[in-house]
Amino acid sequence: MNKPESLSNVRIVLCQTSHPGNIGAAARAMKTMGLTQLVLVNPKKFPHPEAEAMASGATAVLDGARVCDSLEQALAGCSLVIGLSARKRELSHEPMTARAAAQQAMQIAAGQQVALVFGTEMSGLSNSELILCQHLAMIPANPAYSSLNLAASVQVLAYELRQAVLGEPQLSGSSFPPATHDEIEGFYAHLERTLVEISFLDPAMPKRLMPRLRRLFARARLEKEEVNILRGILKAIGLAGNKPAP
Amino acid sequence: MNKPESLSNVRIVLCQTSHPGNIGAAARAMKTMGLTQLVLVNPKKFPHPEAEAMASGATAVLDGARVCDSLEQALAGCSLVIGLSARKRELSHEPMTARAAAQQAMQIAAGQQVALVFGTEMSGLSNSELILCQHLAMIPANPAYSSLNLAASVQVLAYELRQAVLGEPQLSGSSFPPATHDEIEGFYAHLERTLVEISFLDPAMPKRLMPRLRRLFARARLEKEEVNILRGILKAIGLAGNKPAP
Repeated sequence: MNKPESLSNVRIVLCQTSHPGNIGAAARAMKTMGLTQLVLVNPKKFPHPEAEAMASGATAVLDGARVCDSLEQALAGCSLVIGLSARKRELSHEPMTARAAAQQAMQIAAGQQVALVFGTEMSGLSNSELILCQHLAMIPANPAYSSLNLAASVQVLAYELRQAVLGEPQLSGSSFPPATHDEIEGFYAHLERTLVEISFLDPAMPKRLMPRLRRLFARARLEKEEVNILRGILKAIGLAGNKPAP
Repeated sequence: MNKPESLSNVRIVLCQTSHPGNIGAAARAMKTMGLTQLVLVNPKKFPHPEAEAMASGATAVLDGARVCDSLEQALAGCSLVIGLSARKRELSHEPMTARAAAQQAMQIAAGQQVALVFGTEMSGLSNSELILCQHLAMIPANPAYSSLNLAASVQVLAYELRQAVLGEPQLSGSSFPPATHDEIEGFYAHLERTLVEISFLDPAMPKRLMPRLRRLFARARLEKEEVNILRGILKAIGLAGNKPAP
């Protein structure tokens, strides 16, 4: 089931969050990437209007949030638990990058429950919380200032989870039909004739002009309609060159 | 210079931002990934205490922000301009993923200025803003709810920029220097004048001709030398049009 549905097996667990706005913003970040399971361990203020406001169109995630008394309770039934940290910790787990963590999480989430655990805004996960995590993940950041906002961290991880499960999608490109080889060659021939007519290209000494222009237009991968436009321009140049001088 | 320092060549341009808190949160997102150049085009409220509050430890980015009257001014001197969009647009640029856009941006940022342009919270970039962008990038998201918070979008892009520059080096593509934004705009202006002169473009009824041509050349990502060749051709067309008829 390596499909978007496996994202529903991923819990985002927020521990002792101080600001309800961050809970709402995290819910929004989750929904943008197709995550649905939000678990709150002892939130300072929840529910709260600021959480609602920041959730924007993601109130369903907020309304479905589960509130727990302990991290143990939040993690019940999970096969993989990854804790997020901005700090390297003495004697703690070997940290993985967010990208590697997301890839591993989505492998497990194909059939089992996975949790990503985020600590408080001020100090992250405590050591007693971290000990419940099998892995530690870090978002590679500026060593001089690695303090991502909580919801921003959730956004980056949620984004990486979605990329891990969907792969780099080929965004459906242009829906316009590409020009055929013959159409493109017809354009190049027309272009070359025109460049000779306007004395820009000397047939006796063509240098590398046509290869350079071919290289440019090849990169653009011309569409049918674009070839028509370009040949229309070439035709207009021919007409303008033959008109009586003013 | 494919090192963290090249991140200082990347501008984050925020257009008509409504909420000052989002500007502050974007500044924080930037600093966490080592970005420093923030450019604000007609922010609704700036400076503002909410921006300061949300910037947290990134007030230096906020204090260094440049405020501009127009997007053109914000983009001056840039060799690559990428617009962020959540929506697919008719007849617009071919969209790239955030990851692909970040990789391309960091190739150029090794020696030149690059801009990532973000629209308003409510409606993103306008078409007139988008037309100034050579590329359109999208953050692959939940099709049912793709509305990332502005600062969350900046965070994802800033994160991808940092991963692009510090991660596995991308094989460098073309070794020819790309044209700058100003050079490309100079070419488009020259092209438009010429199309009017040869009566291919009716200024009273321009239809979608220039946007279509911009889209074509944007896909090709023009090099400096190619802009010179194309402008040489336009000049020769002008001369040919004025010569006495044979």
